[in-house]
Amino acid sequence: MTVGIVAGMGPAAGVDFARLFVRASEQWLRAHGQPVRDQAFPEHWIAQVPVADRTQALRDPAAPQPLEGLVSALERLVAVGARAAAMSCNTAHAWHAALQERVPGVELLHIARETAAELQRRGIRRAALLATQGTYGMGLYDEAFATHGVECVLPSAEAKEWLMEGIYDGVKAGDMALARRRFAKVGQAVRAQHGDVPLVMACTEIPLALPDAPEAAGWTMVDPSEILAAALVSRAYGGR
Amino acid sequence: MTVGIVAGMGPAAGVDFARLFVRASEQWLRAHGQPVRDQAFPEHWIAQVPVADRTQALRDPAAPQPLEGLVSALERLVAVGARAAAMSCNTAHAWHAALQERVPGVELLHIARETAAELQRRGIRRAALLATQGTYGMGLYDEAFATHGVECVLPSAEAKEWLMEGIYDGVKAGDMALARRRFAKVGQAVRAQHGDVPLVMACTEIPLALPDAPEAAGWTMVDPSEILAAALVSRAYGGR
Repeated sequence: MTVGIVAGMGPAAGVDFARLFVRASEQWLRAHGQPVRDQAFPEHWIAQVPVADRTQALRDPAAPQPLEGLVSALERLVAVGARAAAMSCNTAHAWHAALQERVPGVELLHIARETAAELQRRGIRRAALLATQGTYGMGLYDEAFATHGVECVLPSAEAKEWLMEGIYDGVKAGDMALARRRFAKVGQAVRAQHGDVPLVMACTEIPLALPDAPEAAGWTMVDPSEILAAALVSRAYGGR
Repeated sequence: MTVGIVAGMGPAAGVDFARLFVRASEQWLRAHGQPVRDQAFPEHWIAQVPVADRTQALRDPAAPQPLEGLVSALERLVAVGARAAAMSCNTAHAWHAALQERVPGVELLHIARETAAELQRRGIRRAALLATQGTYGMGLYDEAFATHGVECVLPSAEAKEWLMEGIYDGVKAGDMALARRRFAKVGQAVRAQHGDVPLVMACTEIPLALPDAPEAAGWTMVDPSEILAAALVSRAYGGR
């Protein structure tokens, strides 16, 4: 069936999510012994829409809010035929329930629930969460991690600021070198305190830079977008 | 204004076109002194739809034809708000005129016309065309090159077969190593015969592999998708 991707948050991360979706589709086809050819991929639509900044909206109720933009994008994805959808932005999941209620005709996957379930399947019992202040503030991953028996380790307050710098002044502003330095510094600090713990890159901008940092060679990194993309592929091919 | 991308031909090339669009948007923002942030990007929708094989359809009128799939995708892009659109597949341009006629409410850019105009702007008077048999057969670039005073150099019949192998058995089947070898072989043959001529990679699968071939270091390569993406960005920001 047709699936949709609510993206543009930021646009580079949206493209990367589409790449992960295409790669996960290829993997699904190979795993099911089917030839990889253009027509074998599930139809998928990527809506790269300008959505108000999610972290700012959570901090300040008077700031522009993203819900109407998300509703408009998801409604149009349903109109073109999508029956399942995913959002390629962790922080946007603050509006997951409101969005699903406003647009009921589509299954809207949840990035933290899919990730926690996958960590449990992989036997991971403890993981560090790298995210935006917005994601930390709303406890996006807390309930899902608890449900699946995964202990959540957090960076220090200072390291959380480095993450924000890497995301906003780095990836979103096109300065990948800065992003790599900031994210690597966070990983080093977390590992100095908690040892060789898997790093859950719970903001879609982080996997665009951290894995390329030389310091990160050999670290265990988990990409929730990759897990979400695979879950969406599974819906597209009719599985659960 | 909102713009659309008719893609899925193949899906990996569609994602790459979206990446080029995002990069060209960033470049546009920087060139116009505007800050690069999520909300500054033009709204763009990528329709990754299963479309019948274009080269096969051109070879055999009894084979599944792509026009209806293209019309359906473009109509839905118009329905979500797109007022200009591009197709991330060279061969699909065989149906450019028919598609534009069927869906008149949108400006459908033409990859060969945008590329030829850009070659002329760059002062390039002679270029080699690397493409599918479908693109060669319909002479997609001939008229546009002639209009803009660019002489077109073609690979040998044997080299054209290597291109098809690199596209279908290589990129479309996920074997990038094979694709690099085949495309590099074509480049070497063309350059052996015609000298240091710019290589126009006029099939969206070729830029996914050729630039990574070690043999291609130092070669001049032109990516029509990159030129088309920049043209679409210019429409999105209201220019021509």
